[in-house]
Amino acid sequence: RVNADRLWDMLMDMAKIGPGIAGGNNRQTLTDEDGEGRHLFKTWCEDAGLTIGVDKMGTMFATRPGTDADALPVYVGSHLDTQPTGGKYDGVLGVLAALEVVRTMNDLGIKTRHPIVVTNWANEEGARFAPAMLASGVFAGVHSLDFAYGRKDPEGKTYGDELKRIGWQGEEEVGARKMHAYFEYHIEQGPILEAEEKTIGVVTHCQGLWWLEFTLTGREAHTGSTPMNLRVNAGLAMARIVEMVQGVAMENQPGAVGGVGQVFFSPNSRNVLPGKVVFTVDIRSPDKAKLDRMRARIEAEAPKITEALGVGCSIEAIGHFEPVTFDPTLVTAVRTAAEKLGYSHMNLISGAGHDACWAAKVAPATMVMCPCVGGLSHNEAEEISKEWASAGCDVLFHAVVETAGI
Amino acid sequence: RVNADRLWDMLMDMAKIGPGIAGGNNRQTLTDEDGEGRHLFKTWCEDAGLTIGVDKMGTMFATRPGTDADALPVYVGSHLDTQPTGGKYDGVLGVLAALEVVRTMNDLGIKTRHPIVVTNWANEEGARFAPAMLASGVFAGVHSLDFAYGRKDPEGKTYGDELKRIGWQGEEEVGARKMHAYFEYHIEQGPILEAEEKTIGVVTHCQGLWWLEFTLTGREAHTGSTPMNLRVNAGLAMARIVEMVQGVAMENQPGAVGGVGQVFFSPNSRNVLPGKVVFTVDIRSPDKAKLDRMRARIEAEAPKITEALGVGCSIEAIGHFEPVTFDPTLVTAVRTAAEKLGYSHMNLISGAGHDACWAAKVAPATMVMCPCVGGLSHNEAEEISKEWASAGCDVLFHAVVETAGI
Ligand SMILES: NC(=O)NCCC(=O)O
Ligand SMILES: NC(=O)NCCC(=O)O
Repeated sequence: RVNADRLWDMLMDMAKIGPGIAGGNNRQTLTDEDGEGRHLFKTWCEDAGLTIGVDKMGTMFATRPGTDADALPVYVGSHLDTQPTGGKYDGVLGVLAALEVVRTMNDLGIKTRHPIVVTNWANEEGARFAPAMLASGVFAGVHSLDFAYGRKDPEGKTYGDELKRIGWQGEEEVGARKMHAYFEYHIEQGPILEAEEKTIGVVTHCQGLWWLEFTLTGREAHTGSTPMNLRVNAGLAMARIVEMVQGVAMENQPGAVGGVGQVFFSPNSRNVLPGKVVFTVDIRSPDKAKLDRMRARIEAEAPKITEALGVGCSIEAIGHFEPVTFDPTLVTAVRTAAEKLGYSHMNLISGAGHDACWAAKVAPATMVMCPCVGGLSHNEAEEISKEWASAGCDVLFHAVVETAGI
Repeated sequence: RVNADRLWDMLMDMAKIGPGIAGGNNRQTLTDEDGEGRHLFKTWCEDAGLTIGVDKMGTMFATRPGTDADALPVYVGSHLDTQPTGGKYDGVLGVLAALEVVRTMNDLGIKTRHPIVVTNWANEEGARFAPAMLASGVFAGVHSLDFAYGRKDPEGKTYGDELKRIGWQGEEEVGARKMHAYFEYHIEQGPILEAEEKTIGVVTHCQGLWWLEFTLTGREAHTGSTPMNLRVNAGLAMARIVEMVQGVAMENQPGAVGGVGQVFFSPNSRNVLPGKVVFTVDIRSPDKAKLDRMRARIEAEAPKITEALGVGCSIEAIGHFEPVTFDPTLVTAVRTAAEKLGYSHMNLISGAGHDACWAAKVAPATMVMCPCVGGLSHNEAEEISKEWASAGCDVLFHAVVETAGI
């Protein structure tokens, strides 16, 4: 078993960096706080005898050598970046648990045939720079490095410039590394494990996603002196599209979600009808055909709404991943570990996207999950218990040792 | 007749300060640009022989003495502040036309019995600090000075601090001045004069307004892993309220408008359902009973929408003025001037709020309007012709001279 207290202490220490306003964290990608978190993680890795490599996307790889010089490494990781009002565990648990796995191996003098690489992927959240899982996407060949470097935050700063600014642009070619296997441990971020009273989620699939960025063009005009029939009201069109997306998601129950998390009005003044409204629709389903049908439906309905109002509408797909089926052998390794350790478990489909989804394109991959209170995540109030945290880490430890070979 | 070129040149010179991004202006209240605009205006006033006074709200009063030491002044003015993406004429025309009236009097050697005070009211737009018409509201005793000083911009800076920062906090008690009459010349900001092919709007009334600031409280949660039935979606509630407000405005046609110009999502991240949505509903009508009925209806319907979604809802009235009837004698003076000058004219109800609405509480007041292209305002593309600008200024000149007495 891993050291539950040591894992928890690391989590609490990392949470001191980039504190939020309500007990959580604001350690967004490539901010000064992200840089600080990386330094702390690096120190811990070096203390555990690991060798750090950094690639051109800023992803950190901390290697524990294996006994077979020719064996490809087993990668274990997640991400240290957070949402603007994020929790202390989303992503962080997976990185620090991977480190705890290695520290436990050190304690027990375990040598594995395959090297182990503790990994901190850059920009998983996609909050500051869309899309999410950007660095693992470049690693898997889904995005080009140029595309990634050119991504802009809401202030117009680019990923490339900000990566240099915080001093974490490495030398390694992105994706040059080859993986024997990839494991990622994460909080569920949903309500199922808690409701079913299971400690371990054996993650068999991840649902797919589309992020559709809408740019609606209305006519800026005075809210008082512009008669109703002369308005070209992009805000009203936005409201109708939000409602339409809700309807499409509800019609596709079960097995689908849809919503809007981000809206920008321009000029965003109380007495000006917005000339421009930009917002992002997030739709997901584990069923690829359904997911694509939802997208097609939304893209067909939205222009009807906007045309009726005289509003211009353009839609750009700024994020996408297809539903993923994880590697059966690794899934079995996770389930077997949970059983051996006596933890209650069940199969899960991940509702959120993870770096494991892109890693699965280039290597056998899977995930382990633990419950979170009320299914709450992307919320500073995100909470887990120390017991849940260490149970999943135990499972991760056993599955990794099994896969890396002794 | 006034000097059309001189007036137009002043307009174009002022428009160089705080240029916008699309040909208009961004000279928001108490910004550095506002300060620069005030200095230019002050220089012009001093060149015209006027004496500048500034009150504790930052309103500027430039006095041309009258021949009767006991006669109260005739005030003529508007505002130099703009929307974030405002036009070159909204407010500015009224201030600079008042100055042109005085310059024409100087040219013609006209001495009036009552002094003339060219006035630049502070924070008319209400874009940076709500409510609109803040300084004239304090002047008329509608708001206290403390209330006004405590108003915050979206970054949390207060009116009081920003007024000191730009160096325009005067010594004069706000509202200490007494007015014989108040005239304000403004672009219509609506489509009626142009559609009816009239050059002059004789403004008999101004419609009333409520600004209702909604704060919706949902639950921040992951857009992917939170099932539809567990969402507490403040963004969806916002969308339904925007649609409901549209419905209430449409049911009250003609003679009512309603809409939403400002929306803030929090944390405003693509993969987080908003925990908080703040937005402002703007409703207006010339009919006080109808206006209040609309407000009551919206305040009754909104909680039904939010409760059905489990979303919290609080509503604060952050801006209000009742419909105004302007002074019949001054209205007649405007109409008579237009007729004498041979300008086509019609009666108008102002769709926008103006400092004249508050001035009307403490003195006889009225307005003159000229058309604007396509009725467009609160838009950088706002446009008027030099002929329209000077025609209204001619009317203003004659009505002011008539009222100030020779
Ligand atoms: N795990 C997680 O929250 N990832 C962010 C990407 C997503 O929105 O699913
Ligand atoms: N004239 C003008 O645009 N004033 C701003 C206040 C309002 O919204 O009516």
